[in-house]
Amino acid sequence: MPARLIDGKTYASKVKEQVTAGVEAFKAKTGTSPGLAVVLVGEDPASKVYVASKARVSGEVGIRSIEHKLPATTSQDDLLQLVRSLNADPEVNGILVQFPVPDQISQQAVIDTIDPVKDVDGLHPLNAGRLASGLDAMVPCTPYGAYLMLKGVREDLSGLKALVVGRSNLVGKPVAQLLLRENCTVTMAHSRTKDLRAEARAADVLVAAIGKPNFVQGDWVKPGALVIDVGINRIPAPEKGEGKTRLVGDVDFAAASDIAGAITPVPGGVGLMTVACLMRNTLIAAHRQAGLPDPAV
Amino acid sequence: MPARLIDGKTYASKVKEQVTAGVEAFKAKTGTSPGLAVVLVGEDPASKVYVASKARVSGEVGIRSIEHKLPATTSQDDLLQLVRSLNADPEVNGILVQFPVPDQISQQAVIDTIDPVKDVDGLHPLNAGRLASGLDAMVPCTPYGAYLMLKGVREDLSGLKALVVGRSNLVGKPVAQLLLRENCTVTMAHSRTKDLRAEARAADVLVAAIGKPNFVQGDWVKPGALVIDVGINRIPAPEKGEGKTRLVGDVDFAAASDIAGAITPVPGGVGLMTVACLMRNTLIAAHRQAGLPDPAV
Repeated sequence: MPARLIDGKTYASKVKEQVTAGVEAFKAKTGTSPGLAVVLVGEDPASKVYVASKARVSGEVGIRSIEHKLPATTSQDDLLQLVRSLNADPEVNGILVQFPVPDQISQQAVIDTIDPVKDVDGLHPLNAGRLASGLDAMVPCTPYGAYLMLKGVREDLSGLKALVVGRSNLVGKPVAQLLLRENCTVTMAHSRTKDLRAEARAADVLVAAIGKPNFVQGDWVKPGALVIDVGINRIPAPEKGEGKTRLVGDVDFAAASDIAGAITPVPGGVGLMTVACLMRNTLIAAHRQAGLPDPAV
Repeated sequence: MPARLIDGKTYASKVKEQVTAGVEAFKAKTGTSPGLAVVLVGEDPASKVYVASKARVSGEVGIRSIEHKLPATTSQDDLLQLVRSLNADPEVNGILVQFPVPDQISQQAVIDTIDPVKDVDGLHPLNAGRLASGLDAMVPCTPYGAYLMLKGVREDLSGLKALVVGRSNLVGKPVAQLLLRENCTVTMAHSRTKDLRAEARAADVLVAAIGKPNFVQGDWVKPGALVIDVGINRIPAPEKGEGKTRLVGDVDFAAASDIAGAITPVPGGVGLMTVACLMRNTLIAAHRQAGLPDPAV
């Protein structure tokens, strides 16, 4: 394994430390802590775990966590009404509605209703457009986490060939914008791409965000490349016992880590950055709403 | 010259015909014509030509043209006040502020003030984000014109390798989004790209939008590629007489047209589509403001 391991825990700890200091400074200036409202509709077990993790990390960094748990039968109107009241609430600086929402609710309607300055998930089209246009934006948490890890490994990304596999609004597209802003030559690939192996073999930076376990093969990786694996896939693990599972990324880690220059593991990689970057976004949102310059996080 | 010539005049005429029919249908439904407000600040000769052309083509397709000519000394506050009054005016469906504006006015402040549903230039970050997010948007006119020409030559672009050279908010970035939507594998290149020739040689679709005369060399073009030249550069033309000039694109047309499968000339190419697509956007904006489904243009 010649590849340097890009350890999510180290990077996430650093972000959380910076946010903790930023929260202290914000309190000293304004007399109050940033507030993050997290809305959970229904009883999805994975969503409950994520929401609990967000509340816990909020506590660690000094952000006020406000939880709203609604029944799975909640109507779209009722949810949008709650979002509007959170938009209007000066105690709330960030709003996160945990997705997926039940079928009777349009995810896009929820996204479009969140005030863009409180949109700490960075999914509102205004934030996507501000990011694409080179303006201050709320940047989605996972892509920003991936970006911080890349910058940690190599500060100057200018001129590198980057391949982003996957074009979701949540990850692939914002990652591409962040890498373009860093002056990478950025290629966006996806399920219709004809020779993904050849594209990958040419990439100095490879970001996989497709949600297919071990999809990117080791010999697709350019020797020395920086590999960021955003996938988190649960697969059967009979070696651990009957019915057991384990998490793997979109990249065949065992093979790729012999070839890459640096690589993120799964678990223990980008996934750990998501909540840390959510805290960062909440701190930034609080500053913008208070009319203060963005904090240095 | 084996390349098929992609003639801007033919494509622009077709768009204008469709818009003319759409305007007639809109009038039949609503009793009124779409209205386009064009705002010119100052006396820039090129801007005056563009504004006059917009008014003329509006007349051709049946769109009401409302011109506002302000002195070069206009303050930002006064211009934004005018934009807000146009936002509120139900007779105005589209607002175009001719850029560049004088130095005392922030272009971004103007863009951010235009109501996104009247933003027929497609420059508001909300429209950029809606395009990037796969939602209905106002798409900037020149990129959409380039896209229509590509689709005219080859209806199914899926899986093609596309290279967009230039990453402006006005052209490069929206073109990349449109090609991604068509399932191209899209690479965004720019001044920091290390081996632009190699990128171009691999591209089935090449869009040049950098503003450098004859920059893309003939032997950079992949044999059979579709080449869209968005550049419009004025260069000296001593062969036409002392002090004379002529227009050329970003692609060395004479050389590239021996190699490409199809290519747009300059002049006579994409440039002719811009105003036609502005009319199209105004018609679409009028439909959306009237609560009607988008017209088939």
